[in-house]
Amino acid sequence: MKYSEDFLDAAQQLIDAGRFIDSKGWVPATSGNFSARLPDGTIAITVSGKHKGRLQPDDIMLIDAEANSLDGKKPSAETVLHTSLYKRFPDIHSVLHPHSLNATLISRIFKSGVVLEDYELLKALCGITTHESRIVVPIFSNDQNIPRLAELVEQYLDRHAICYAYIIAGHGLYTWGNSVQETLRHLEALDFLFDCELRLHGVKNE
Amino acid sequence: MKYSEDFLDAAQQLIDAGRFIDSKGWVPATSGNFSARLPDGTIAITVSGKHKGRLQPDDIMLIDAEANSLDGKKPSAETVLHTSLYKRFPDIHSVLHPHSLNATLISRIFKSGVVLEDYELLKALCGITTHESRIVVPIFSNDQNIPRLAELVEQYLDRHAICYAYIIAGHGLYTWGNSVQETLRHLEALDFLFDCELRLHGVKNE
Amino acid sequence: MKYSEDFLDAAQQLIDAGRFIDSKGWVPATSGNFSARLPDGTIAITVSGKHKGRLQPDDIMLIDAEANSLDGKKPSAETVLHTSLYKRFPDIHSVLHPHSLNATLISRIFKSGVVLEDYELLKALCGITTHESRIVVPIFSNDQNIPRLAELVEQYLDRHAICYAYIIAGHGLYTWGNSVQETLRHLEALDFLFDCELRLHGVKNE
Amino acid sequence: MKYSEDFLDAAQQLIDAGRFIDSKGWVPATSGNFSARLPDGTIAITVSGKHKGRLQPDDIMLIDAEANSLDGKKPSAETVLHTSLYKRFPDIHSVLHPHSLNATLISRIFKSGVVLEDYELLKALCGITTHESRIVVPIFSNDQNIPRLAELVEQYLDRHAICYAYIIAGHGLYTWGNSVQETLRHLEALDFLFDCELRLHGVKNE
Repeated sequence: MKYSEDFLDAAQQLIDAGRFIDSKGWVPATSGNFSARLPDGTIAITVSGKHKGRLQPDDIMLIDAEANSLDGKKPSAETVLHTSLYKRFPDIHSVLHPHSLNATLISRIFKSGVVLEDYELLKALCGITTHESRIVVPIFSNDQNIPRLAELVEQYLDRHAICYAYIIAGHGLYTWGNSVQETLRHLEALDFLFDCELRLHGVKNE
Repeated sequence: MKYSEDFLDAAQQLIDAGRFIDSKGWVPATSGNFSARLPDGTIAITVSGKHKGRLQPDDIMLIDAEANSLDGKKPSAETVLHTSLYKRFPDIHSVLHPHSLNATLISRIFKSGVVLEDYELLKALCGITTHESRIVVPIFSNDQNIPRLAELVEQYLDRHAICYAYIIAGHGLYTWGNSVQETLRHLEALDFLFDCELRLHGVKNE
Repeated sequence: MKYSEDFLDAAQQLIDAGRFIDSKGWVPATSGNFSARLPDGTIAITVSGKHKGRLQPDDIMLIDAEANSLDGKKPSAETVLHTSLYKRFPDIHSVLHPHSLNATLISRIFKSGVVLEDYELLKALCGITTHESRIVVPIFSNDQNIPRLAELVEQYLDRHAICYAYIIAGHGLYTWGNSVQETLRHLEALDFLFDCELRLHGVKNE
Repeated sequence: MKYSEDFLDAAQQLIDAGRFIDSKGWVPATSGNFSARLPDGTIAITVSGKHKGRLQPDDIMLIDAEANSLDGKKPSAETVLHTSLYKRFPDIHSVLHPHSLNATLISRIFKSGVVLEDYELLKALCGITTHESRIVVPIFSNDQNIPRLAELVEQYLDRHAICYAYIIAGHGLYTWGNSVQETLRHLEALDFLFDCELRLHGVKNE
């Protein structure tokens, strides 16, 4: 298959993002998956089973908005978690799903969600202009039945218009943005804030 | 605009400092800002919204001592926190403001300031010649009203002649020195000592 | 001695693996050893006493299935721990033994083994397809008498068909897989999960 | 001054060691100092005030066994701590003094010394052949009067023939070996073991 310039550009952005994310230790083993929506509505997404810090162009595939393969490659089971976010939010153009230690630990310590407030770094999230903000990152139970998990996420997002990310318990984080770069900014900020909350949780409980 | 050799040299020092500071994880997302005062009293300073670990020459702008743009670029809201330090301390030529995890956690755990004493590394701070020294790094409440925050800092500095740095709660650290290199040395020493205090705080409270 | 292409290829994989493992801090000083089984049943293995992050081709030697040197180089005392795993598991082609901080701490805190369950990252282990799995990584007492230690491992493996790795107390981890790459994936996943368990152990006991 | 080949070789080893040690975060700001004894008994040693991760050949000076400068450069105040070790131990050819976080924290938590036992990594220390060993790393109070501090160290070493390293409280570690490479191995092993002890101290006291 001959890929478009848009696809090749998005694929390179995902490869670079993977190298950065891996340098932080957020995609151990072959975990995680990343995607970017192209101007024509199709989606470039990582195939499963590859180490996300050492992605090659061939490790990125093309799907349509319904998660069907357009190039014969086999998409990951979690692909539908990406496509349902793209359907809900017309302005987003990237979804990143790493498995960071902090997100995993957060999900084991906090029950249904973690509250982030009174941090200057909240301003790294699109649309937030003051540290006097409060956001919730919800935590969902892990489920190998991805359509069922996607439905749970949908129900939450129906009730909460403002949401920057969610955590799947014992698994990892999903976050999104209007470009790969903005999504990386969201990811970097969220992981920093998760780190703060974990460290402060230890102190509070002393 | 055609920039002077002094500006271009200072800009390169800030770019290099940003790469170093980012390698330590102290400027997550697009947080932080850095400046250097030139021999003629004008100031090279990072524009806002860029990742400080990947600065390009175009991401550094020129302002005067009153924080007015001299090259048409738009300065960050926090610029006045830099200019007020330059006005107060005629000998300093650089101000660095990272958002490190340690500074953020310190501000959540200690109330109005953190005391650093009996560390050999205090000698990395300009003018300190023995570990038998005691310095206080004050902590100020965060405020999106930067002139009001700057005024709070001014009042503190009026009363405390010796001060190497201050923390804005839930936000980050400001530190300064007579060159970019000296300020980096102050930053590296302070973050190390914050790390010590955080780790020992956990132990003391066991 | 003139080495085969298979040996040279395996040696390069072990050198690269060592550089990666050292970048994580898992082979401090000259600790650890790594091996790969070649198609003809002989085994490429690191000689002892070298820093595993800076291996040279000359630091890899060739042994037979009984741990006898085939090239005149002197094998490490721990070589028999590699050969006994290769004898037991006909499908594995690599054994990696790092000394990570997490494995060392796990062995000091947990008694006879550590249980890993309900983590998505368990799926990085060969044959596991759901987070609803439970594995045990056994911990054996350290022993300078390696044949005796090997015997202890053998007895455990006789009773437990499914085993991905074991820890030697105060020493390090042994893990294996059907290729160097798969074994690295196991190692990366296990160390991440050990990190989780250590951090959560602290929280649980607060 | 024209330096000998031996000096230039030792200087390069110290530069490389500094880059490695800095990559671990063990020489924050401009802390630490390193030396190597040459075959003729003179000593190559870092000058003070430089960042040890970015040493240049000009940052290494030559002294005699009495700590007198042989090339007109000014030695650090701590030079005598190096020369007294070289006098006592005829077989050692390198002394490394980093300021690691772990050594600093150890000195704040443990009183007069830290005991390391039952670790396989003890075998990284010259002469130790089993994990069933027990070593003590003594801790001395910091003192800006270096001759007085050196005297304290001498008295301790008079009473304890076997000693691999000592900690100066709130300051850092001194360790030594028969080459720069062996001393780095000692340093890497000791910092790993300090890390273990600090982490386990937290657990024990829960």
